[in-house]
Amino acid sequence: MKESWSSVDTLETNFRPLVVIELAKGTKEETIEWFTKRIVDKKANGGAQLLIKPLVTENGDENIYLVGASHLRLLLGAENVGLVKECNDNSMRAFTYSSRKTFKDFADDNQNFLTMSECQYIIKHELENLRAKDEKMIPGYPQAKLYPGKSIVRRLLTNGILVQIFPLHDREELKKLRHTWYGQVKIGYQPLDEIRCYFGETIALYFGFLEYFTFALIPMAVIGIPYYVFAWEDYDKYVMFATFNLLWSTVILEVWKRICAVMTYRWGTLLMKRQFEEPRPGFHGVLGINPVTGREEPVYSSIKRQLRIYLVSVPFVCLCLYFSLYVMMIYFDLEQWALDYHEENKSHFSNLMLYVPSIIYAVVIEIMNRIYRYAAEFLTSWENHRLESSYQNHLILKVLVFNFLNCFASLFYIAFVLFDMKLLRQSLATLLITSQILNQFAESLLPYWLQKRHMKKMKERMHSLKMDTDLSLVEQVNSEKEMGTYLGTFDDYLELFLQFGYVSLFSCVYPLAAVFAVLNNITEIYSDALKMCRVYKRPFAEPTANIGVWQLAFETMSVISVVTNCILIGMSPQVNALFPDSKMDLILTVALVEHLLLAIKFVMAFVIPDKPREIQIKLAKLEFESLEALKQQVRVTDLYSSER
Amino acid sequence: MKESWSSVDTLETNFRPLVVIELAKGTKEETIEWFTKRIVDKKANGGAQLLIKPLVTENGDENIYLVGASHLRLLLGAENVGLVKECNDNSMRAFTYSSRKTFKDFADDNQNFLTMSECQYIIKHELENLRAKDEKMIPGYPQAKLYPGKSIVRRLLTNGILVQIFPLHDREELKKLRHTWYGQVKIGYQPLDEIRCYFGETIALYFGFLEYFTFALIPMAVIGIPYYVFAWEDYDKYVMFATFNLLWSTVILEVWKRICAVMTYRWGTLLMKRQFEEPRPGFHGVLGINPVTGREEPVYSSIKRQLRIYLVSVPFVCLCLYFSLYVMMIYFDLEQWALDYHEENKSHFSNLMLYVPSIIYAVVIEIMNRIYRYAAEFLTSWENHRLESSYQNHLILKVLVFNFLNCFASLFYIAFVLFDMKLLRQSLATLLITSQILNQFAESLLPYWLQKRHMKKMKERMHSLKMDTDLSLVEQVNSEKEMGTYLGTFDDYLELFLQFGYVSLFSCVYPLAAVFAVLNNITEIYSDALKMCRVYKRPFAEPTANIGVWQLAFETMSVISVVTNCILIGMSPQVNALFPDSKMDLILTVALVEHLLLAIKFVMAFVIPDKPREIQIKLAKLEFESLEALKQQVRVTDLYSSER
Repeated sequence: MKESWSSVDTLETNFRPLVVIELAKGTKEETIEWFTKRIVDKKANGGAQLLIKPLVTENGDENIYLVGASHLRLLLGAENVGLVKECNDNSMRAFTYSSRKTFKDFADDNQNFLTMSECQYIIKHELENLRAKDEKMIPGYPQAKLYPGKSIVRRLLTNGILVQIFPLHDREELKKLRHTWYGQVKIGYQPLDEIRCYFGETIALYFGFLEYFTFALIPMAVIGIPYYVFAWEDYDKYVMFATFNLLWSTVILEVWKRICAVMTYRWGTLLMKRQFEEPRPGFHGVLGINPVTGREEPVYSSIKRQLRIYLVSVPFVCLCLYFSLYVMMIYFDLEQWALDYHEENKSHFSNLMLYVPSIIYAVVIEIMNRIYRYAAEFLTSWENHRLESSYQNHLILKVLVFNFLNCFASLFYIAFVLFDMKLLRQSLATLLITSQILNQFAESLLPYWLQKRHMKKMKERMHSLKMDTDLSLVEQVNSEKEMGTYLGTFDDYLELFLQFGYVSLFSCVYPLAAVFAVLNNITEIYSDALKMCRVYKRPFAEPTANIGVWQLAFETMSVISVVTNCILIGMSPQVNALFPDSKMDLILTVALVEHLLLAIKFVMAFVIPDKPREIQIKLAKLEFESLEALKQQVRVTDLYSSER
Repeated sequence: MKESWSSVDTLETNFRPLVVIELAKGTKEETIEWFTKRIVDKKANGGAQLLIKPLVTENGDENIYLVGASHLRLLLGAENVGLVKECNDNSMRAFTYSSRKTFKDFADDNQNFLTMSECQYIIKHELENLRAKDEKMIPGYPQAKLYPGKSIVRRLLTNGILVQIFPLHDREELKKLRHTWYGQVKIGYQPLDEIRCYFGETIALYFGFLEYFTFALIPMAVIGIPYYVFAWEDYDKYVMFATFNLLWSTVILEVWKRICAVMTYRWGTLLMKRQFEEPRPGFHGVLGINPVTGREEPVYSSIKRQLRIYLVSVPFVCLCLYFSLYVMMIYFDLEQWALDYHEENKSHFSNLMLYVPSIIYAVVIEIMNRIYRYAAEFLTSWENHRLESSYQNHLILKVLVFNFLNCFASLFYIAFVLFDMKLLRQSLATLLITSQILNQFAESLLPYWLQKRHMKKMKERMHSLKMDTDLSLVEQVNSEKEMGTYLGTFDDYLELFLQFGYVSLFSCVYPLAAVFAVLNNITEIYSDALKMCRVYKRPFAEPTANIGVWQLAFETMSVISVVTNCILIGMSPQVNALFPDSKMDLILTVALVEHLLLAIKFVMAFVIPDKPREIQIKLAKLEFESLEALKQQVRVTDLYSSER
């Protein structure tokens, strides 16, 4: 037990509050009674067998509850969710209660065997898997229908009876983490293992990728600097830089897979079996029989969904893309108009006017991205996907396509229609730098400032100006429940994805982009860390083995960048000068080089193994062991049957 | 029990000979005694617990043994190899002896629950897994070293003590199969399920692919005929044909994956767990500890292997490719020389001389392919791969690259260096048709004829001219052991792969290729069927879930054909006439179209699911059930621990 939890011990011995449940104010008494009974009830009776305590606040409201669990319950839960931990022989294995003694650091009295975020994840899992038995509705709320097997917590959430569930921060641990992460001025790696312990694998993997990506950009940045310093304009140097860039981007994406495998092996998530996915909370349909589980649950025809996707969503996305191109054309008209105006007047005012179209366009892009995001979320939700993962994939695809076009269309237009390399370089620099500054401000600093102001107000109201770590549990819960909710790593990855586009799509035109990207990412690490630790509620840990669909997105970008760079090089006057007689030879040469580069990229992706040899061996060893165990089982049957 | 086996019953009740073991003549008595004892010995003593009988031939030699097994032993073996069978509720499940009653058609007295080829596969598996315990060498052969865990059969094979192991034909069944397969003149599907029952999944899958591929080529062939009949030369018709062809080839390859999944689900191999792979027989190294199994076995440094691959094999392959190109250049010189000679003399002889270079080149290609094949086998074997699968992959890659270049280099040269479309069409037709005729002759008809002659001779020698089905067991074994060994589906797939190349690489030049391919494949089905049933020994069934690396090879070919077809169309005079002013626009248009087609192909491959929805649901159901079973287990632990 940590010092900071000693105040809790007065409530009941061994009750360590892990997760906070906030019910709507004025929730009916019978509902609360039924819900808490279900949480406390034995597994055998269909309960979650957890501990729950009301949090008594000053004004006597009883709508906040603290959930905990006994040590034994947590261990059994760990087995249930398939947690993988390190054994005494340094191998990683799925934790089972019966083999608990073989795990490293396990002792019956060691409450720290499971990290706090693991405990919280287990409790979340158990709460979400608390299912209706024969209840037809939530007691007290006849409109909140239930059917056997429906997750109670999800129904409570969709009906607004349950406001939120969130895990508590561990102020002591957080302070330590903050110190090692960004508290001290030092150059070094992030404490990824500590981040993983505190925030879970998904977030740690994002920070790992951010750090890796920053390091991977350094060679590009280093090579890019002399181009700026010496104002190199030789085509061969640009060609060399672009070629290096294109092959390098394949290498870094392949190597990331290996590094990711090493990390997630160490964290145990590489071996974690995928759990069966339940329908997402928003999924609806008529009650029917799920063909997979045989259970009664809402079903929704897959053909209807396909129709919605192909007849509504796809046309809508295309329309949005068209609209985005239309806005771009208006921007270029405005740009031309401003230029003409400047030519005519040549005043300070007209000079200023030159920047107006760009600023308007940048703002409009940002606004369109946001509106489109809402539209995409609405549409994807309306498509009524049964699984959260399928919902996410469709949403990410929609958002990616639009963001890609919205951000890069003007650059493509400048490069391949206007053929204006100077303007391209200028626009690229402007877009990259302004988007980075805007993002950092909007994402971290603004929320941080708002949060700080809010905290100050609240502390003033409470007439107590204690240090963070000295807050009482009530104060802590009250302050944390007001914090913003971290909505996942989507926006952070999207930012990196667009940055990767700026760096690689036109890398032969603006080698300095990598330098800005590196500088941005170094501050990004700190501002994102600040955001996680200070601005948002603690998120639930989410086990994951890789960065999922983003790997594919980055790889696609790297393929597209081969095409754009080859065209750019082919268009450069220096390369054109090499083929004075025939444009045809030039184009054929460029096409040949492009195809060669693409082929090399595919071969490289094929040849570089996705997992390092060491991990491969460890995985093979585990598989071998499970096969041997199976054989042993057969042999037992064998003996048994020969005895008969 | 089948009628044809009744003769066996006189030997011992219930002994059904399944597999034949042929030892070298003059094998020492103590070796035979030790080997047969190990085969018969109980599992608990490290034996295979099979039945074995010597086959007494006329001349009294005792070097041939028949292996069988009791029904119970085979059922336990089926569980051991992870056989998947259909249950009473129509779902596919891994067979276990304890749950045997739930399987369809299972009855304790039903000896046909396992097909004969399954029984033979089980016996092969058990024999191969007969491992040395504390023997240091094979008794009687001190040079044949053993170490604990070494497969005895493999050591006997590599030392030449064991000549061969092969499964017996079931003459009755084979006759039925022959009748339904190719005995009757009818148009229809092949009896794939029966083929699978008799020859196993790998061979059935090849015939399934051959049939599917033939059907898939029919649309191309149908569209191709009018081009020949009406001598169409309009560029737009060619462009349409090529575009259809390119998209079609993606569709057929994707749809094949789905069809393959449906078939292998029905056969149970889609669900079969991969067994742990033992080192291949030829693998050697110093004795060490395998990091995966922890067993003592030969180990070979992976770095050494990489060095051998990259420093010897890759340069050698490159050299061969260069040599092949060199030979091609000589061919073109010869061709030119013959043309010049004909121009000068204009005689019948000189007209004949025109064909000489093509014939010489065709023969040289064939010879080079064969020599290279030996070299590739030697090199891959020298690379010392631990696993058979990795050996096969490296061999296939080597052979594919060389065959591709050897067969298509001259066509590429004619198309993209000589720009001679007429010659290209002519060469393509000649190469395609001659290679098809040669192949059919060399692969099936020649061996069949040799085999028939040999059989006739043997029967004459035995002074008995009975029907096939009436042969005694001794005669059957003696005739079968002399038959050729089927070396796997490699050559058959390679043939199809090259045919696919002829059809798709230059499809816009010679639309008739698909017609010839269809015609060839229809006869190919029959000649391959004849080959399997009449020419070769029965091969061991080999469970497999897909066509493996060939899927990738065909997909790569279809990507390459996009590039070649786009270039061909771009070069056609009709398309050139469309862009009279600027060659540049032409090339840019062609490049754009090519990239678009490639993008569409990738999107199509991504969008079409690899498994039909129905199979997806069935797989999800099984996964769900196993997860539920796991939970149930946890719940039992749960109860147990809460009782304490």
